[in-house]
Amino acid sequence: MEDVKSETILSGIYKPTFLVDTAKASVNISRMVSRANMADAVLRPHFKTHQLHRVGELFKTFGVQRIAVSSVSMAEYFADGGWSDIMIAFPVNIREIDRINALAKRVTLGILVSAEGVSPQLAAKLQSSVRMYIEVDVGANRTGFLPDAVEQIAKAIAQAEKNPWIKFSGFVAHAGHTYQTPNTQQVSEIHRQGMNSLNRLKEQFQRQHPEIVVSWGDTPSCTLADDFFGAEELRPGNFVYFDVMQWQLGACAMEDIAVAVATPVVAVYPKRNDLVVYGGAVHLSKESVLCNKGRPHFGMMVLLNENGSWELPSSPCFVRRITQEHGVIALPNDFANRFSVGDLVGILPVHSCLAADLLRNYTVFLH
Amino acid sequence: MEDVKSETILSGIYKPTFLVDTAKASVNISRMVSRANMADAVLRPHFKTHQLHRVGELFKTFGVQRIAVSSVSMAEYFADGGWSDIMIAFPVNIREIDRINALAKRVTLGILVSAEGVSPQLAAKLQSSVRMYIEVDVGANRTGFLPDAVEQIAKAIAQAEKNPWIKFSGFVAHAGHTYQTPNTQQVSEIHRQGMNSLNRLKEQFQRQHPEIVVSWGDTPSCTLADDFFGAEELRPGNFVYFDVMQWQLGACAMEDIAVAVATPVVAVYPKRNDLVVYGGAVHLSKESVLCNKGRPHFGMMVLLNENGSWELPSSPCFVRRITQEHGVIALPNDFANRFSVGDLVGILPVHSCLAADLLRNYTVFLH
Repeated sequence: MEDVKSETILSGIYKPTFLVDTAKASVNISRMVSRANMADAVLRPHFKTHQLHRVGELFKTFGVQRIAVSSVSMAEYFADGGWSDIMIAFPVNIREIDRINALAKRVTLGILVSAEGVSPQLAAKLQSSVRMYIEVDVGANRTGFLPDAVEQIAKAIAQAEKNPWIKFSGFVAHAGHTYQTPNTQQVSEIHRQGMNSLNRLKEQFQRQHPEIVVSWGDTPSCTLADDFFGAEELRPGNFVYFDVMQWQLGACAMEDIAVAVATPVVAVYPKRNDLVVYGGAVHLSKESVLCNKGRPHFGMMVLLNENGSWELPSSPCFVRRITQEHGVIALPNDFANRFSVGDLVGILPVHSCLAADLLRNYTVFLH
Repeated sequence: MEDVKSETILSGIYKPTFLVDTAKASVNISRMVSRANMADAVLRPHFKTHQLHRVGELFKTFGVQRIAVSSVSMAEYFADGGWSDIMIAFPVNIREIDRINALAKRVTLGILVSAEGVSPQLAAKLQSSVRMYIEVDVGANRTGFLPDAVEQIAKAIAQAEKNPWIKFSGFVAHAGHTYQTPNTQQVSEIHRQGMNSLNRLKEQFQRQHPEIVVSWGDTPSCTLADDFFGAEELRPGNFVYFDVMQWQLGACAMEDIAVAVATPVVAVYPKRNDLVVYGGAVHLSKESVLCNKGRPHFGMMVLLNENGSWELPSSPCFVRRITQEHGVIALPNDFANRFSVGDLVGILPVHSCLAADLLRNYTVFLH
């Protein structure tokens, strides 16, 4: 990771590099903080998107104090960075119980119970104080108890609370199916239905557990919502960077995307109208979306300015094919002759979380 | 990376971990060495697949002395590991010219010119001795000069050889389109046609450049070929590990796959017949293939033995969905009750090169 003066940014880049526009990221953070404030909810941003102390510090400047991560390793990393309230928003991995016990001594640690059979193991092995959340499957069909499995949920809570270190603290859900919706109206409908389920559960359990909260997360619904339906906590992550997928979902404007991958041009084929860049699946990931003509692509090309900032070309240029280290960018007719081998072009990633994970050690911050 | 005694392998694993069965990998190497020997060709295995010294050492025991890599960084890594003849089998990245110059002083370095406009820049900037190969596009449509672009190729060679450090050394091709073929017969046809093109070019240029060679690479054709059509050098990479994609192409048997990703079970859903593992896109990549029913999947589950070895379950179990850290494995009816949270299951990756890249620092070798 490097911090370089504006005028030297491009000249210092010689291989695929993740550019973070901190001004755009700050605006994205600021907007989400405002949304949470207006909803009277606490923003607990998901740090799996960036996994970097430097971006964490940006959040601190906006008063953010609680975070979510998706692995014990990430929790350790951010505990080392001074974060003291961390939820591991991933089904608790029993095999890491020793590290969880050690971490729970250092920070206020939240863990998730997402299925039957987990609580007895947790109760037997936990030796430090944790907040235990029940994960509810609000329709993404990935992880969590079904909202109507009240008996199983009650049993899981009772089994866990046999261990006095474990405090049942609320319900969490990630509405991942918002990513499969064709329009923003359906995102809102998923949000409303999911929060209904969580609020019903909260009502049923709060007599016995008066301090429980509802924690809701996913960038599309948190970005688009007019109403947060009483959630005490919001856990979106991607919004700090956004990406082409979020733009297609209507969760951001193209100008809000705060990251681009700078890639060296290694071949120009004017007859094919193709550029080939050093930038492939090990830099951008193989995540794809469909362009408006229904063909898959792996990112959108942007033109880089000397200071590292970028702009879209007059016609959209998609990364049409990707292999381990190669990216093939399709250009409009007669556009290829504007590029030479050795140039840098930017690529807006389809999924910024995956590109950020791959290029963590090759990140440059723009001011 | 760790070397652990057999009986402790599973007990020492707590997060997604790349298991390499060195016995299987050795057999895979040995077979490819034999194939190259029979074809009177030199095996220059592509080390982008594993990117690890330990696997490199395995190749050394079979007498392998030349290697291919796909970036300057990988070339530096293996030069540090004692490899002295390295081809960067990727269009030369002019932006890394200083590192290329430094590396060329340490090892016999091969670089690729894959398009017009590259040679003049190379000629202007190279200050150490390199072997320059012309990359030919034999139909993959990714990188390289078209086989009939004889004039442009002659020009690129002449432009490069104005710099006395550059020695034109031959033609290389990667028939990546073998990965899109529905059957092994088409793989052979691609191989035959591609080698015809390369041999024609060699004939045209060898009067002036008597020492040039033809270098051919890609695992499907190198594994399936009965005839190597006179290639002096073979550059397959994936064969050391193989994977589900290669198995589907008919390039290996299921038993030849030498790697599996060990993943902790974090949730079991018997009603849905799903297992959820800690093992997602940042561990396996988002590479998918279609199962024989035409549905995409991200890997095949295997049952792990205590010593780390694995076997297929009686019915195939596919990783049907994958997000950043989650993998969802679909099971046959009544199979879920065999698993508990905290178990480890293995996943044969769809594309071992990408999984190996992601889990490079979490690799365990089985003996």
